[in-house]
This record gives sequence, structure tokens and C-alpha cells, in this order.
Amino acid sequence: MHQHIPTPDRVLARNLSALADGAPARLAGWVHRRRTLKSVTFLVVRDRSGLAQVVVRDPAAVAQAEALTEESVVSISGTVSHNPDAPGGAELVAPAITVLTEPAAPPPAELWRPTFGAGLPTRLDHAAVTLRHPRHRAAWELAAASMRGFRCALGELGFTEVMTPKLVETATESGANVFELDYFGRPAYLAQSPQFYKQMLVGVFERVFEVGPVFRAEPHDTVRHLAQYTSLDAELGFIHDHRDVLAVLRSAIAGMVASIETYAAEAAALLGVQLPRVPDEFPVIHFRDALARVGADPDEPDLSPAHERALGEWARAAYGSDFLAVEGYPMTKRPFYTHPWGAPPPKCPPKARVAGSEDTFEGSNSFDLLFRGLELTTGGQRLHRPEDYAAAVARAGIDPTALGGYLDAFRHGMPPHGGFAIGLERWVARVVGAENVREVALFPRDLHRLAP
Amino acid sequence: MHQHIPTPDRVLARNLSALADGAPARLAGWVHRRRTLKSVTFLVVRDRSGLAQVVVRDPAAVAQAEALTEESVVSISGTVSHNPDAPGGAELVAPAITVLTEPAAPPPAELWRPTFGAGLPTRLDHAAVTLRHPRHRAAWELAAASMRGFRCALGELGFTEVMTPKLVETATESGANVFELDYFGRPAYLAQSPQFYKQMLVGVFERVFEVGPVFRAEPHDTVRHLAQYTSLDAELGFIHDHRDVLAVLRSAIAGMVASIETYAAEAAALLGVQLPRVPDEFPVIHFRDALARVGADPDEPDLSPAHERALGEWARAAYGSDFLAVEGYPMTKRPFYTHPWGAPPPKCPPKARVAGSEDTFEGSNSFDLLFRGLELTTGGQRLHRPEDYAAAVARAGIDPTALGGYLDAFRHGMPPHGGFAIGLERWVARVVGAENVREVALFPRDLHRLAP
Repeated sequence: MHQHIPTPDRVLARNLSALADGAPARLAGWVHRRRTLKSVTFLVVRDRSGLAQVVVRDPAAVAQAEALTEESVVSISGTVSHNPDAPGGAELVAPAITVLTEPAAPPPAELWRPTFGAGLPTRLDHAAVTLRHPRHRAAWELAAASMRGFRCALGELGFTEVMTPKLVETATESGANVFELDYFGRPAYLAQSPQFYKQMLVGVFERVFEVGPVFRAEPHDTVRHLAQYTSLDAELGFIHDHRDVLAVLRSAIAGMVASIETYAAEAAALLGVQLPRVPDEFPVIHFRDALARVGADPDEPDLSPAHERALGEWARAAYGSDFLAVEGYPMTKRPFYTHPWGAPPPKCPPKARVAGSEDTFEGSNSFDLLFRGLELTTGGQRLHRPEDYAAAVARAGIDPTALGGYLDAFRHGMPPHGGFAIGLERWVARVVGAENVREVALFPRDLHRLAP
Repeated sequence: MHQHIPTPDRVLARNLSALADGAPARLAGWVHRRRTLKSVTFLVVRDRSGLAQVVVRDPAAVAQAEALTEESVVSISGTVSHNPDAPGGAELVAPAITVLTEPAAPPPAELWRPTFGAGLPTRLDHAAVTLRHPRHRAAWELAAASMRGFRCALGELGFTEVMTPKLVETATESGANVFELDYFGRPAYLAQSPQFYKQMLVGVFERVFEVGPVFRAEPHDTVRHLAQYTSLDAELGFIHDHRDVLAVLRSAIAGMVASIETYAAEAAALLGVQLPRVPDEFPVIHFRDALARVGADPDEPDLSPAHERALGEWARAAYGSDFLAVEGYPMTKRPFYTHPWGAPPPKCPPKARVAGSEDTFEGSNSFDLLFRGLELTTGGQRLHRPEDYAAAVARAGIDPTALGGYLDAFRHGMPPHGGFAIGLERWVARVVGAENVREVALFPRDLHRLAP
């Protein structure tokens, strides 16, 4: 049996100024920047909390510092000196430098510059190094905080986290853009979403969520699509209609924003992010009203990106909201399991609605949520009665035997239910205003990219 | 714009007894059990919180209840009646029953019986329904609570959650048991672990964790292996050696156990689980001492299951601990990135050790953690210097170009680091005492099973 000796004290850059002036302290991290002046050398040390400055004056230490390239890993002991001109209000003086790894090879562009000085391909080719740039890692900090907030909000609402199979027997949900693999000698497919599984699990836990990878063999090179992305999925039973789903989506997004404020405030500030205000209730417009508002043909089956932008501007002007839900999309544009508009579960009347016209609306009990004029997520109510599935599957021309266990679940009693899915990278891209989702993914996968 | 009308009040079964005697209440859920006596029919309703009893005496309601099969989905309004003989201390009387779905098809075995009455194949073939059995869903509640506790503990220690690629270019980590797929016309592989990515991300965030699926094309049909399982991974930088990793592992497991106590206490009680007490520090024995203790040949390269059981018994007797870490495994039994025993980072002395002999130990700075005499997880310190990787890769006979971005990260400055991975299903199986990991997975995948 050995005795465990704790790691010697190390102070994070963020906490340096909390130590007393003149106190001994040890920083550990990467040499973020080295600046050599005539009589003094500055080392900026980067650790997981941020940056701290080290002032090197002793000639031997200066010589040592000059041999260090940026990104070398160091442990530096010295004395805290409060200095209002130093970043963070304190710096380390009289340093003794311990090199933990030999001088590092230079990154493909200098990481200490405020803006990364090379293009996206270079950045992605060397992601393990270029993600160290404070702006790049900040984007992922928003992603990590978003996941944390999503889970926290849903946990408080009684949701159970699930983990569903990514290897599936059939590719029937959409049929296209699916990766095929060899599964012990027979074909299998990578799951494009946990849709069928989260529905089945509503029968077990009522309320479930999953945060995990989904796979799309997207054959086009676009700024919005990845071959693997992180899907934030939720599904809940005992709803009246899709408005209950929308209310949970609102809580989830409120939780994500609150979590960014709590856990990634510095990252958001660094990126100049204006976080959305999440209203107590999202404004909702019916698809048909949305078409009319943007002056589109009433028979259009979908909203164009220009329509979505115009609706986003309208929502901001009319409701001061970054969010707008469009409900009642035509059934033809929705997957087979979508619940049609307003049809209530038997003996369970639909909610009263204030406007008179909409009871005559056709379409589906589903919605898109627009965030700043761009589609963020799709959700809605699903069918829950076995005979409705039998009819829907036949209409869609799907072989019901391919859906075996999924359809079986509905024969064994499923409540009215619905759910939604948020693409994590798409959410973060919207929040930070990135043009391309690849800018906010860690190691993106696409048509051309399978490494690093 | 529609106005959102909130869902009518519904009380969860667990909360029925908190309502006043005589108060109106509505339950919604599944008919878990129906019992018809001469003058009264009992319906036990199951919802996500548990079970509640409904007493039906009105002849019309009795007739309605008799038409309901078990697993039918209902909404039942009635009056709360406190009754010390009712499960939970209260029941619903004078019920008005609304059927939300038509009578359900019977499950493959009655779900209301305390023990599920069919074998594992039947259970797995109909998982969407058989997971509804309170004992089966309870096992997953332990899993969900464990994930929550893992993330919470690591979040408090400053870890950042990451999501890494599951589609990778090369299958070099182990080379065997890997799923191959067609990636836009070229071969790709499903990641067997996030190992390389979490190490690279130590260079970005210092401390990272991931909870996600990993894939093993395990060609043997064993009770311990799945083709997809959930891996709880962590990796941290600026360590002294593997003991720092072990300390984080201990915190993670303590968080998992505490989370089960907080969020899944009823599930643990239902399963009769004796939760482990997590000591402030795990007892540790060196591999060579472990061999000696169990009377094995000192040249054995590994511990057998019988050795692990014997060591587990010894740890319980000597330390009152369900856990025992065995450190210093031979390098030959560990992957190429393993850090050899005791070798310190340059100019960073190793921790003082109390026993005298071990500085002469060979082996690795890695450990296995035994939990109740079975291997739960493996962890340790990794190499971090580029020249050490060059040598290790050459020794292992791996083509370094296949490791491109991974090896590159070490050229750009990486701190001493290490980590571990816990298999979620294996952990839960150990906690509940399940023989077969399939008993605690939701929809297991193996050599023979790709559905549901």
C-alpha cells in the first residue's frame, strides 16, 4: 500500500489576483505568448481558466524563457505582484521556470493573436492544436454549457436520460443519407436519430432525453450539415398536443442559455455573444398565417430561408423575441409518425383555442422553431394509436416488418406524446453567429473530412 | 397567435398521498394490474413515479374497467382517499375513467408480477414493452443517475464535456474487433473509444470527459461484452502520475453513488441494492504484490478472474472496501501510449512513496480498479513527450502516419496527463449483481442481436 501525496499547490490563472500581494504561487500551463523587451521578458501562461502574465528579469531566467517556444508546457513558481496594468490585475514576478515538455513545434498560425490567422481548412486539419486558440475553445465552452443546461432543465422536469442504439437493422426513418456497415457479416446502419427509440422509451419512462451522436451521410458540402453531429433529443408522454412539447423546448432552451451565463460567461464575452432572451412563452404562428405574412403563395408546402428571415424580423419587431414557432406544417413535409393537426386523442378534447379560424386549418401538430430567422429545431406530436401507425406506414409505402419492434410498442399501450431535437453545433453556430457549423465543432466530419 | 392553455392538473402516483383526503385528483398512466373481486375492482395505475391504486365500485365504471387490458393507457379522475392499507397510503375512489388508447395487447409476460416471468431472450426481443417492468426500468434508473453523478462530480472538478468523432480513419488503437463502414466511398471505422481524442483535448481544455457510445465488434458471445456500450471517459492534464487519475476516478465514483442515492433511491431499494461505500481514498496494491498475495507466479503477466475475486475479498477484509486499485501492470499488457512505472516528467520529481521496495518495480503507471472482486475500469498515466511516442509507436509496430493528428498534438506541447474509462453497463451490472450486462442495457447489441 502506498500513501497518496497530494499534488503540490497550483493556482489557476483566473485566481492569481485573489492571492495576497507578495504571496508565493505556482502557475502551470502553456506558454501562450513570449515578448522579449530590452530589460524584461514577459511570458503569458495559458491554462484552462485563462491567461496570466509572468515577468522575467533575472538574466538566467530570461535566457531560459528565450529558449521556450510558444505552446511549450511549463510550471512556474514565483511571487504574486498586484498590478492594475497586468491582465487580471496581478502577475507573477521573480519566476523559477520548470519545463514540463521540451520546446513545442510552432502551431500553423500564432495562437496568441486575437484572431486566428489561417483559414478554416488549415484550422480543421490541425484541430488538436488550433482548438487551443481562446476563441475556438470558447465556442466549444458554449456547447458544453448548453449540454449541461439542457440536461439540468429536463432533469428538473422529471426526464430520464437514455442511451439508444447507434447500430440499427433498417434505414427506414428517411431511407436516404444513411451509413451502412458490416455487422458480423450482415448489413447494419448508423442511426440518423434516436427517434424510434425515444418514442418506445416514452412507454417506459414517460419523459426521456438523450444527448449523443447522430449520423447523416450527407452527400452535399454545405455550411449547415455534418456527417456526425450531437443531437439534443427529448420526448414526453401524456401531452395534449404539440404545444406541450413546445413548452418543454422553451424550458430546455432557457436552461441552455442560463447555463451559458453560469458556466461560460467569459467565453460568451470573448466571442461578443449577445445571448438571446428567452420569453416565458415562445410566440407561435400557424404555417398558413406565416405564408400570408411573408406574401407567399398559400399553397407553398414549406418556408424558404428568405421567408424564415422575414418571419424572424417580424417576431423581433412584434414580440421582441429571438424565437418564433411556426406550427401546423403540411403533413406532406413531415415524417410518417407525425400527428395531424388538432386531432385529439379519443375522449380527450383538444385545448381551447382563442382564434376562430384555426380549427379549420389542416396540417400537422408539429412545429419548427426559428431562432433569429433560421430554423433551429423541429418538433411536434407523434401518432400514438396502433391503427394510425398501420395507416401511416401504408401511406408512406414502408414495409411494416422493417419497423418490427417500433410498431409493436404501440400495440402495447402508448400515451399521446411528442418531442423535439436540437442540433448542438447548429445551436452554437447561431448563438455565436458562425457562418459554418464546422467552426464550432471539435473534429467535424463531412463528405471530405474523416480526420483528425 | 394562439394562447397556450396549460395541461389540466395531473398528480403523479408518488404524490397522491400528499393531497388532502377527499380532494379531487387525476392520475394518468398505464393499467399496471387489474383485479376484479365480487363487489369491487382494483386498478393499479403505473406512471413514471410509481404505482397508485384506484378503487372501482360503480357498476358502469366496473364494466369499463373490465374491458381494459393491462398496459392500456388511461386518465382517471376521482377522489383521494387516505387508506393506510393502500400502497403509498392513499388511493383514488369514485373514479371516472378516460381511455387514452384502446385496450393494449398483452405483454410477453405479465409486468405486474414482482419477477418477470420469461427468459432473457424474450425479454430482449420485446424490450420496448418488457423494460416497463418496474425491476427492469429500475436498473436503467441507476444507470441514468450514475451518468448524472459522473458529470456532476467532474464538472465540479473543472472538467469540460466533449463530444468526439465516432467515425475514424484508422483502426489503430487495438486493430481488432472494429466495425468497418463505407464513408462516401472509402473505408472508415467506428471508434472503439475516445482515447486519442480525449488526450488531444487535454491540450485544449486540460480536463475533459465524455459520456457516449463506443463500439466493439466483439466476436464472442459473453455475458460481459456488448457491441455498443456507454463509456464514461475522463482525461486530465498536469498530473504527477496515475495516482492523481485514481483520485479523480474515486471522486467520479463517489458522485455516481451519491447521485443514485439522490435520484434513484427507490429503484435501488426495489432491486435490493447494497450501494458501495466509497472510501476517501481507494486502497492500492502494486501488481507484483497482488500476485504474491494470491500466490501466483511472479512472472504472470495478468490477474485471472479468480485472482481478482481473492483480491476483492482481501480488500474487504483488510480495508472494509468494495474497491481495490491494482497499479503497476506490466507494460506488455497495456496499450502503446501507457506511461512506464515511476518515470517522472523531466525536472518534475515523482511523489515520495512510503514503501521502499517499489522504486525498483517495473511495470506501468496504470491501474485496474476492482469493484467487489471484478475489474470495473482501467486507467493510468499516458506518455506525453513526442520522442516517447515515436519510440512507443515503433516498438508496437504501428505505422506513425496512421496516427497523424494524434502524434502531431504531442509535438505542440502536451502536459503529463492520464485518464480512465468506466463502462456504464458493466458498472450497473456490478451494482445490481446482474450476471449479464444485457440485463441492464436498454436495447443491447451483440453478435446475434441488432434489434429492436
